[in-house]
Amino acid sequence: AEIVVLPGDGIGPEVTAAAVQVLRAVGQRYGHEFHFTHELIGGAAIDATGEPLPARTLDAAKRADAVLLGAVGGPKWSDPGAKVRPEQGLLAIRKALGLYANLRPVKPHPAALGASPIKPHLLTGVDLIVVRELTGGVYFGQKQRTATSASDLCEYSVEEIERVVRRACTLARSRRGHVTSVDKANVLETSRLWREVTTRVVRDEFPDVTLEHQLVDSMAMHLLSRPREYDVIVTENMFGDILTDEASMLAGSLGLLPSASLGEGRVGLYEPIHGSAPDIAGRGVANPYATILSAAMLLRHSLGLESEARCVEKAVDGALAAGVFTADLAPAGRGVSTQAAMVAVL
Amino acid sequence: AEIVVLPGDGIGPEVTAAAVQVLRAVGQRYGHEFHFTHELIGGAAIDATGEPLPARTLDAAKRADAVLLGAVGGPKWSDPGAKVRPEQGLLAIRKALGLYANLRPVKPHPAALGASPIKPHLLTGVDLIVVRELTGGVYFGQKQRTATSASDLCEYSVEEIERVVRRACTLARSRRGHVTSVDKANVLETSRLWREVTTRVVRDEFPDVTLEHQLVDSMAMHLLSRPREYDVIVTENMFGDILTDEASMLAGSLGLLPSASLGEGRVGLYEPIHGSAPDIAGRGVANPYATILSAAMLLRHSLGLESEARCVEKAVDGALAAGVFTADLAPAGRGVSTQAAMVAVL
Ligand SMILES: CC(C)[C@H](C(=O)O)[C@@H](O)C(=O)O
Ligand SMILES: CC(C)[C@H](C(=O)O)[C@@H](O)C(=O)O
Repeated sequence: AEIVVLPGDGIGPEVTAAAVQVLRAVGQRYGHEFHFTHELIGGAAIDATGEPLPARTLDAAKRADAVLLGAVGGPKWSDPGAKVRPEQGLLAIRKALGLYANLRPVKPHPAALGASPIKPHLLTGVDLIVVRELTGGVYFGQKQRTATSASDLCEYSVEEIERVVRRACTLARSRRGHVTSVDKANVLETSRLWREVTTRVVRDEFPDVTLEHQLVDSMAMHLLSRPREYDVIVTENMFGDILTDEASMLAGSLGLLPSASLGEGRVGLYEPIHGSAPDIAGRGVANPYATILSAAMLLRHSLGLESEARCVEKAVDGALAAGVFTADLAPAGRGVSTQAAMVAVL
Repeated sequence: AEIVVLPGDGIGPEVTAAAVQVLRAVGQRYGHEFHFTHELIGGAAIDATGEPLPARTLDAAKRADAVLLGAVGGPKWSDPGAKVRPEQGLLAIRKALGLYANLRPVKPHPAALGASPIKPHLLTGVDLIVVRELTGGVYFGQKQRTATSASDLCEYSVEEIERVVRRACTLARSRRGHVTSVDKANVLETSRLWREVTTRVVRDEFPDVTLEHQLVDSMAMHLLSRPREYDVIVTENMFGDILTDEASMLAGSLGLLPSASLGEGRVGLYEPIHGSAPDIAGRGVANPYATILSAAMLLRHSLGLESEARCVEKAVDGALAAGVFTADLAPAGRGVSTQAAMVAVL
């Protein structure tokens, strides 16, 4: 299988290197041939080529079976007046590969509950997955700027909503059969369309799935007060961005949360949901588990290697159970290196 | 002073009645003349007049010193195809009165920490206030609908940003002098404008205030993991909606959180941040504290009665300290009535 690795910026190179080592080990143990090609994206790509997503990177991604990405961005490229930004590379590759469904599972590990701000009794049994629409909404609508104002257009088509809802419902069938659709239908026209389409798709195509609608503001509360009640949560791009970062607190650290971005095609993009963490970059202390778990999702969703995926997930579980914590999970001042955490997974 | 009361829907009439009794008691004790007029808004107004904000209500509000509102909305008026919705009444009155700054203080009460999903050690010392922009952004931009798509426009002018940021900075001066501005400047054009204007206003007009920028997704995390670090948080309308409901979990219950909506004029609108809670409406069990604390904000911001405001806040503190909890705060199955909670404040 052809895997394109996009390390990106900050801690991106460190965490992708760790995940690649885990994938190599899986290949050896199970007798698969994984071939890795490294390409540029984000700030690193801007520095080298002037563009956040060079054509060469996109071409390689299009020909690959899967893409493993670290993170993009950092203060170096964050000048308010900057014409090109690292994040544009990430948004552009999601769009160009048609990766409209971003899967973000949240299943707090018993050993990491201490790192969560949430009371532990609320976290036992939590096992939810957010399906975030990833190529539409206000992220990709027309942007305008005048001397005295600015605007962003949030747009959704029926088809964009249908396909991501179908993906969420299909996923729900392999889980507990429950979908919570999140919108702001009491204010937004796009949300009213979202609610109508979701209701119709579930009624006509997934009558076995139970559907509940939730307003985004009240979801932001209930995610904390009764996280156990959720199975699959489907929502639009911006709401998904906010709610998944919030949901990461259930798991104790952003450093534990993987994601898979999928479209109709074969190629998927896998990345930790954390950012480039410039403050700790280059020090070998970043938490590699989220990227390693993203690699597990890659094995599952792009390569169809379910038992290999489970094996990696079990290994991360084991490392956490053994208390192999990087600094984000460990009591202040302690924590093992990225390398040590990776080795604990092997 | 002229106070217009808009009970609205669901538990709105119950909680406003409790707050009015508290205001009457304050009037008697301190020798102020408060005159109350009740008007219709939301679903109740739709039922009676066909409109969510009748002209008579708006006229009364414009002539008043302050408006005390309960809540609007409910399943009865939530039909997806409905032409008029209760929420339109709320949005319209905010807009018509020019109430661009919505203040939402969050200061967890020691006695209510048990009701919060957050670990208690993170909550001690938390004292933050969100200043949410309330008359702009995607709430009020042009909405469109075609057979196959929908859109909402998010727009901000320099002036709209300046005035709410000034309000936040002025507030910060009377507190700990720290402002956190929340945006999504790595994606949205409105957020980039927001960041530029905020930076300039603080630099030129409030050099004594410290300003920090935070992306909305990372704010959704840090609000939970280090809430103590925040003083004044200023943000746009939709982000403020989501973040304040999330922040309410720090206080244990939405039922404890008041809000004040202010503009350039004298009249302010005061409402609990909770909704109409149709599931418990009419049963006399709703938590009145958020509305009573909103009445305290009314005394402070619209009537200039600071010591009266403090007196009400102290009384609510005392009732909570004495364990006078409605069902949202009490262990399952227990909880006192709305009336009993109100009496404990008198
Ligand atoms: C970096 C940023 C553009 C991105 C997003 O908002 O989608 C990130 O926050 C994420 O969630 O993957
Ligand atoms: C009822 C709704 C329109 C309103 C809003 O989103 O502003 C409410 O959620 C609030 O926060 O006051």
